[in-house]
Amino acid sequence: MSLVVIGSIALDTIKTPSEEVEDVLGGSAIYASIAGKYFTEVSIIGVVGEDFPQAHIDLLNKKEINIDGLVRVAGKTFRWSGEYLNLNQAKTLDTQLNVFAEFKPILTQDCKTNNVTLLGNIHPALQLEVLDQIDCSDLIAMDTMNLWIDMTKPELTKVIKRVDLIFINEDEIKMYAEKSNIFEAIEFVLDLGVKYVVVKRGEYGAIVASKEDLFFVPVYPVRKVVDPTGAGDSFAGGFTGYLAKMKKYDFETIKQATIYGTITAANNIQSFSVENLQHLTETEIENMSNELKEWIKI
Amino acid sequence: MSLVVIGSIALDTIKTPSEEVEDVLGGSAIYASIAGKYFTEVSIIGVVGEDFPQAHIDLLNKKEINIDGLVRVAGKTFRWSGEYLNLNQAKTLDTQLNVFAEFKPILTQDCKTNNVTLLGNIHPALQLEVLDQIDCSDLIAMDTMNLWIDMTKPELTKVIKRVDLIFINEDEIKMYAEKSNIFEAIEFVLDLGVKYVVVKRGEYGAIVASKEDLFFVPVYPVRKVVDPTGAGDSFAGGFTGYLAKMKKYDFETIKQATIYGTITAANNIQSFSVENLQHLTETEIENMSNELKEWIKI
Repeated sequence: MSLVVIGSIALDTIKTPSEEVEDVLGGSAIYASIAGKYFTEVSIIGVVGEDFPQAHIDLLNKKEINIDGLVRVAGKTFRWSGEYLNLNQAKTLDTQLNVFAEFKPILTQDCKTNNVTLLGNIHPALQLEVLDQIDCSDLIAMDTMNLWIDMTKPELTKVIKRVDLIFINEDEIKMYAEKSNIFEAIEFVLDLGVKYVVVKRGEYGAIVASKEDLFFVPVYPVRKVVDPTGAGDSFAGGFTGYLAKMKKYDFETIKQATIYGTITAANNIQSFSVENLQHLTETEIENMSNELKEWIKI
Repeated sequence: MSLVVIGSIALDTIKTPSEEVEDVLGGSAIYASIAGKYFTEVSIIGVVGEDFPQAHIDLLNKKEINIDGLVRVAGKTFRWSGEYLNLNQAKTLDTQLNVFAEFKPILTQDCKTNNVTLLGNIHPALQLEVLDQIDCSDLIAMDTMNLWIDMTKPELTKVIKRVDLIFINEDEIKMYAEKSNIFEAIEFVLDLGVKYVVVKRGEYGAIVASKEDLFFVPVYPVRKVVDPTGAGDSFAGGFTGYLAKMKKYDFETIKQATIYGTITAANNIQSFSVENLQHLTETEIENMSNELKEWIKI
């Protein structure tokens, strides 16, 4: 049982209404890997530059995340800078692709046969390249963003048609499907052949849908949101990590995965970077999951 | 077992992105009464003018809603005109209070001892006058709106402190509590002594909270929203109607009430006015409630 995560590794500079941090560890692959590792073995595929601090590599090693597929190349690490005017919507101030511009994800031999693959939010062309390398995988999940819907929709559609599960924001699925009604938008994407659509609704939780089934999950109540960066990635990481652990992909297991993803995300947003996310215990995750289930039980 | 609803009775002119209707039956008391009547006996307390069509009175009679407390006075009926640029947010174009300006709600003798009272969204001073008339009521619920939070907050607080349950929109409770975090806002209102806080989140469902318990319910998926007017009122009517029927007010019953309120609201928004809401069957309501419960079951 193991999860392979392909995505960005970043140094983030983030401003929230109350605080500001510079060059902290971030990126979709980082958040997803650390969240997923609470449930299963994780391999990370990504690229960093010469300036990437050894302390971050040490953290991945300490978390026993497989970094055989983490490549260090000449140049600077990918940087993202954003500001939250409120804690729901990020405004990108600056993106420096740096070494990420030339990133060609190569799956290590192990990774080609792992049971769950998470294609983080990267250019659909790269996602297609990764898909071509996978020999077998029980479940392939993908994430995306508005940029690719705007710029490379035909390629994005090709990716969607080849995966089993898509994580997508509410605004983005409406934009992609060109439907203002969320349920119509979900149906549109299911009609492309993807088995599960997971709509991320920020502070309103998530919807999981298949052709036959539907499941709503609220957020885990967090009184003090410090930094929402990585919420979607830690959600996807916890979600796919749980699936990899269970090696089952029926709707009942998907529902449990949604709960666990919600819990890893709720922990992530209570600090900058992975400060909080890296220090969870299985007991904490289990207790919070049980609380959340209690709050939807009828 | 019975429910008393005090609120507005209106002739609404509504524009949506696709259609426009003029002087259709509306008002918080109308939506709530018709929704509540699927569960229990309902008495309506309100005022109309000389121009109020007999057909609407006939409808209330046909629905066997007690109209002893519905007063007809000289002048014109309350009129509201609004536009929905999208189907989530109403923009008020015009409000003509007319006979509603002088409305003094008087509870009929029966109504003073009914088991559930719903104080619709009217001026807090009027809500206080109604509260003074209630001899006994197992549960008193109230609704409110941003206008009263802006203009008459001290009086509104007096009302909140005297009721058992408050229905309030997410934006409004944040505004009232002066908290941007919804869970902090809920705690603030619970600290005033109200037993149950029911936060209406539009297309994101509702949160019900007491000091000890929490429950999240999603919306019932509606593909084609025709007109959201009265969604909150039909929710409150179905909710309190179910409580009146059960004569139980523990959290488990409150949770069931939230499901039923969600279903009456989902039916309401599929047509203008009460076209759809008035034609439900108990079987339809039961089937939709069971579907909704299935979609949150884990």
